[in-house]
Amino acid sequence: MLKDNERYDQLIKERLVIIQNSEVFSFSTDALLLAHFTPKMQKGRVMDLCSGNGIIPLLLSHGSNYTIDAIEIQPRLADMARRSVEHNLLTERIKMHEMDLKDSNRFTPSQYDIVTCNPPYFRQNQSFRHLKEEHMIARHEVMCTLDDCTSATQHLLKQGGKLYMVHRADRLVDCLLSMRSARLEPKKIWQIYSKPSKPTAVTVVIEAVKDGKPDCKVMPPFYIYNEDGEYSAEMKEVYYG
Amino acid sequence: MLKDNERYDQLIKERLVIIQNSEVFSFSTDALLLAHFTPKMQKGRVMDLCSGNGIIPLLLSHGSNYTIDAIEIQPRLADMARRSVEHNLLTERIKMHEMDLKDSNRFTPSQYDIVTCNPPYFRQNQSFRHLKEEHMIARHEVMCTLDDCTSATQHLLKQGGKLYMVHRADRLVDCLLSMRSARLEPKKIWQIYSKPSKPTAVTVVIEAVKDGKPDCKVMPPFYIYNEDGEYSAEMKEVYYG
Repeated sequence: MLKDNERYDQLIKERLVIIQNSEVFSFSTDALLLAHFTPKMQKGRVMDLCSGNGIIPLLLSHGSNYTIDAIEIQPRLADMARRSVEHNLLTERIKMHEMDLKDSNRFTPSQYDIVTCNPPYFRQNQSFRHLKEEHMIARHEVMCTLDDCTSATQHLLKQGGKLYMVHRADRLVDCLLSMRSARLEPKKIWQIYSKPSKPTAVTVVIEAVKDGKPDCKVMPPFYIYNEDGEYSAEMKEVYYG
Repeated sequence: MLKDNERYDQLIKERLVIIQNSEVFSFSTDALLLAHFTPKMQKGRVMDLCSGNGIIPLLLSHGSNYTIDAIEIQPRLADMARRSVEHNLLTERIKMHEMDLKDSNRFTPSQYDIVTCNPPYFRQNQSFRHLKEEHMIARHEVMCTLDDCTSATQHLLKQGGKLYMVHRADRLVDCLLSMRSARLEPKKIWQIYSKPSKPTAVTVVIEAVKDGKPDCKVMPPFYIYNEDGEYSAEMKEVYYG
């Protein structure tokens, strides 16, 4: 099932396999953190936006009975994701849609309990650009902006449904504003630090509730590494369970 | 100099004295944290909004050469603050203005390097109301809202000047939105937790820069207590230096 430059990677805790290709896309620690902070429940419909090679749907299929849709605009990534889903015998539960999330109003409104999103991190005008088109589209707001993600989410979520988004900590304010302006009220913020001695958070995960009341909880800090550079106990839990 | 029910309290690190009255107003730990995260420099003009009994101007006078204006709407609190300033022989450096901060356009625009603000925490419609009028005005958005504070700040600060605001963590999103809509870009966020084992932050301190570029740092968590209920080393530093 592998194409040129592709490899199988193991998702250890989930006992699943994912197709990756470093030349095009491989998932990051942030995807693991997003899935970690997204609740896994016995039932529910989930939509994953900016799905890349389908890492979030695969991770969320474990320990839940979710049926999961996922949107990815890049054909090569959507194709990798589809083959990973097949390889793991999850075609009954995970469906990849190769499409632009700006067209999500094709989906019946207010169907989803949860939307997850690991969007492109960098503003379109930010100077650093990757040479490879796939990397650029995955990391820069070329094909979609934060507001596109929150607008789509607003359409897709049920009343009271929850968005989980991971983003760079330096765009926390942008995320919160975009959410509130799409009537997705931020309710929980987790800050991810590299290690305790590092001064600032690198990543944030945010939970927002469609038409929720304004009342936000700042959750405990999460450290990826111990001071000695080993994974922290909480990060080992994310990786290995 | 004391009136009925008033007492002198010591500000240990600053070697200053402040007049308090538990029936009317006494400062909270949050005021100490706000002053802690506000830089003290050799020169500069500072405006303190919602100044209460003048705790912030007193704290900031120590270790800086700031000249400090302060606005307080409640006559009894402004009077206590004025007498504290006199008692500490700081009348040359600290000036209390008994006025509504919504009238801050009386001040020449763009004069201040720093604005500090410990605003009323509770929305006007939040159910819990203190019986005493002074407490109610200090804690609920009766006389001024967050947007009133950020509008006044926008008028007062120089280009590139900095706002330091302390607020309840559950209003973080409200603060960030109000700041950005007043062109005060949030740049640093400190989350204050009661102790490491407590799940959510209680308080946040935010630095925002007038017309700053969007790029926000989530700072290290700050713990008031150790697990054993003693003040943490960092909190002892705030109190005792």
